[in-house]
Amino acid sequence: MARALSTCNGRANLFGSSTSNLLSPSSVCYRPLVVRMSREQPYWANIEADVETHLKEAIPIRHPVSVFEPMHHLAFAAPRTTAPALCIAACELVGGHRSQAMAAASAIQLMHAAASAHERLPLTDRTRPKTKPATERKFGPNIELLTGDGIVPFGFLLLADSLDSAQNNPDRVLRVMTEIARATGSQGVVDGQFREFIISQSDEEEAVDASSIEYVSRKKEGELHACAAACGAILGGGSEAEIEKLRSYGLYAGTIQGMLFGIGRNQKGVREMVENLRALALKEVESFKNREIEAISSLVEPELSFV
Amino acid sequence: MARALSTCNGRANLFGSSTSNLLSPSSVCYRPLVVRMSREQPYWANIEADVETHLKEAIPIRHPVSVFEPMHHLAFAAPRTTAPALCIAACELVGGHRSQAMAAASAIQLMHAAASAHERLPLTDRTRPKTKPATERKFGPNIELLTGDGIVPFGFLLLADSLDSAQNNPDRVLRVMTEIARATGSQGVVDGQFREFIISQSDEEEAVDASSIEYVSRKKEGELHACAAACGAILGGGSEAEIEKLRSYGLYAGTIQGMLFGIGRNQKGVREMVENLRALALKEVESFKNREIEAISSLVEPELSFV
Repeated sequence: MARALSTCNGRANLFGSSTSNLLSPSSVCYRPLVVRMSREQPYWANIEADVETHLKEAIPIRHPVSVFEPMHHLAFAAPRTTAPALCIAACELVGGHRSQAMAAASAIQLMHAAASAHERLPLTDRTRPKTKPATERKFGPNIELLTGDGIVPFGFLLLADSLDSAQNNPDRVLRVMTEIARATGSQGVVDGQFREFIISQSDEEEAVDASSIEYVSRKKEGELHACAAACGAILGGGSEAEIEKLRSYGLYAGTIQGMLFGIGRNQKGVREMVENLRALALKEVESFKNREIEAISSLVEPELSFV
Repeated sequence: MARALSTCNGRANLFGSSTSNLLSPSSVCYRPLVVRMSREQPYWANIEADVETHLKEAIPIRHPVSVFEPMHHLAFAAPRTTAPALCIAACELVGGHRSQAMAAASAIQLMHAAASAHERLPLTDRTRPKTKPATERKFGPNIELLTGDGIVPFGFLLLADSLDSAQNNPDRVLRVMTEIARATGSQGVVDGQFREFIISQSDEEEAVDASSIEYVSRKKEGELHACAAACGAILGGGSEAEIEKLRSYGLYAGTIQGMLFGIGRNQKGVREMVENLRALALKEVESFKNREIEAISSLVEPELSFV
C-alpha cells in the first residue's frame, strides 16, 4: 500500500506525488478520510483519482480569479468523504459506465466542500468544537463564505453539463439534481450540521448519547452517501429496486463513517450501533446476485482505519 | 394608492393588513423595495401577493422546527427584489400562465433571501458597510448561515416539484435550474457580492467610480433579474428570440435598481448611466409587437421611488 501513499503537508495523499504537481498554484492536496487496508484499495484510489482529475478540469483558475482560485482551493481542501467514490461505484455496480456518474460524483464532492467551508466559519455564536482541530486558513472568512455559496450552484451546473459531456438523459439528470438538493438541504446535511452545532457547544460532551451521534451522522454523512449511491445507480441505469438498495447501503455506510470518525465517536454504545449498521449495509448489497460486490462492500469493512 | 398600503413594523407593506395576519408565528412582513407610482402598480402587487402565498404554502413551519422556522422567517425578511415578479410578468408577456412560472419566481426569491442572509453575517473580516443600516436579528449568525445554506437547495426542489404541480416540461425545468444556478453562482451574484464587499470595506467610498457600481449592480441585481425574466419566458413557452430579449431587459432593469438603490447610488455618473440603461431596456420590450408591454415596462419607469 505504501506505493500509493505520499505526504503533502504532513498528511497522507492517496494519489502520489505525480498528481500532486497538478494542484499548484493553490498548493492544496487531496486528503483521504480513510485508508482502506483491504485488497480493494486500488479500486477506490482509482475512482478518487478520476474524480479529482474531473474536478480539476472543471474548476480551472479563470476570471474572476478572486472567485475561482478560492473555489479551486476549497474544493480540494475539505475533509475527505467517500461519498463521491461511492456514487461511481454504485453506477458501475448496476452496469453503468464511470463517465455517466462523474458529474454527479463531482457535484457531491463540491456540496461537501461547501458545507465544510461554512462549518469552519468563525461566527460570533460559535466556539470551536473540542473534537475539531483548528485548520490552516488560506483565505479569510468572507471569501470562504462566498466561495461556499458559489460552489453549490456550480455543482448543479456540472450536472446540467453532463447532458452533453456524458450524454446523460435529461430525466435522470433532473432526478439526480433533486436527490442532491434534498440530501444537502434543510432535512439532510443542514439539519445534521444544526444538531452537531448544538452538541459541539455543550459543556458536557460526555453526556451526548449514542442516538444523538447517530442522528447527526445519519443526516450528514449518511444522507450524503445515500444520495451518492442512489445517484450513481440512477445514472448507471439501475432498476428502482437497485436504486433503493444502494440508497440504503449508502445511508448505512455513511452513517458508520460519521459515527466512527465524527463527533462523539468514543461515546458508549457507538461501536455496537456501528456493528448493527454494518450488518444492515452488507445485507443490502448481498442481493446483487452474480455481481462483484467485494469492492463496494469494502466501504463498511471493519478494517477501515483513520489517518 | 394608499388603499394598498399598510405598515408592518413601520415599513410599508403592499399587501395590506388582511394578508399580514397569515405571517404569524414568525411575525415577518413582506417589505417592498420600491413603490411604483404608476397605474401598473396593482399588476405588480397582485403578482407579489401570489408569489408570497405560494412561498408561504411551500415553507410551512414543520419538523424540524429549528430548521423550518428560521427558513420561513428569512425567506420573507430579505430586502425586497422585483426579480420574482419580473419572472411572472415575463411568463405572461410571452403568453404563458402565471402558474407555470410560480415555482421559478419563488426559487428566485429564495436564492435572493439566502444571499441576503449571508451578506449580513458578522464575520471577523467584515465591517458593516456605511450604506447598510443594522438590521434586527431574530436568529443568531449560525442559524442564519445554515438557513441560507438550506434555502438554496430548497429552491431547486420547488422547481423540480413544478413538474407535477404546474405540469412543466422536464427540459424547461432543467434549463431553468441551470439559468438560476448560473445567475446565483460564482460568475453572477457571488461575484457581485465579492466586489461589493471590497468596495464597502474601503475607507474612501467617495473614490468608488460609477463603473464599479455598475459592475456590482449588474452582477447582483442585473443577473438575477436577467435570469428571472429568461426563466419566465422559458416556462411560458417563449421563442428563443423572446427569451433573449427579456433576458436583456431584465439585465438592464435589475442593474438600474442596483445602481439606484444599492451601494454608491449618489456617485457621479450613476444617474446618467441609469438613463442609458433605461433607454436600452425599453428598446428590448418594444419589439413585443401587439402585446401589452405597459406593465413590464413600468419596472424601469423614472417614477420608481424608494421606500
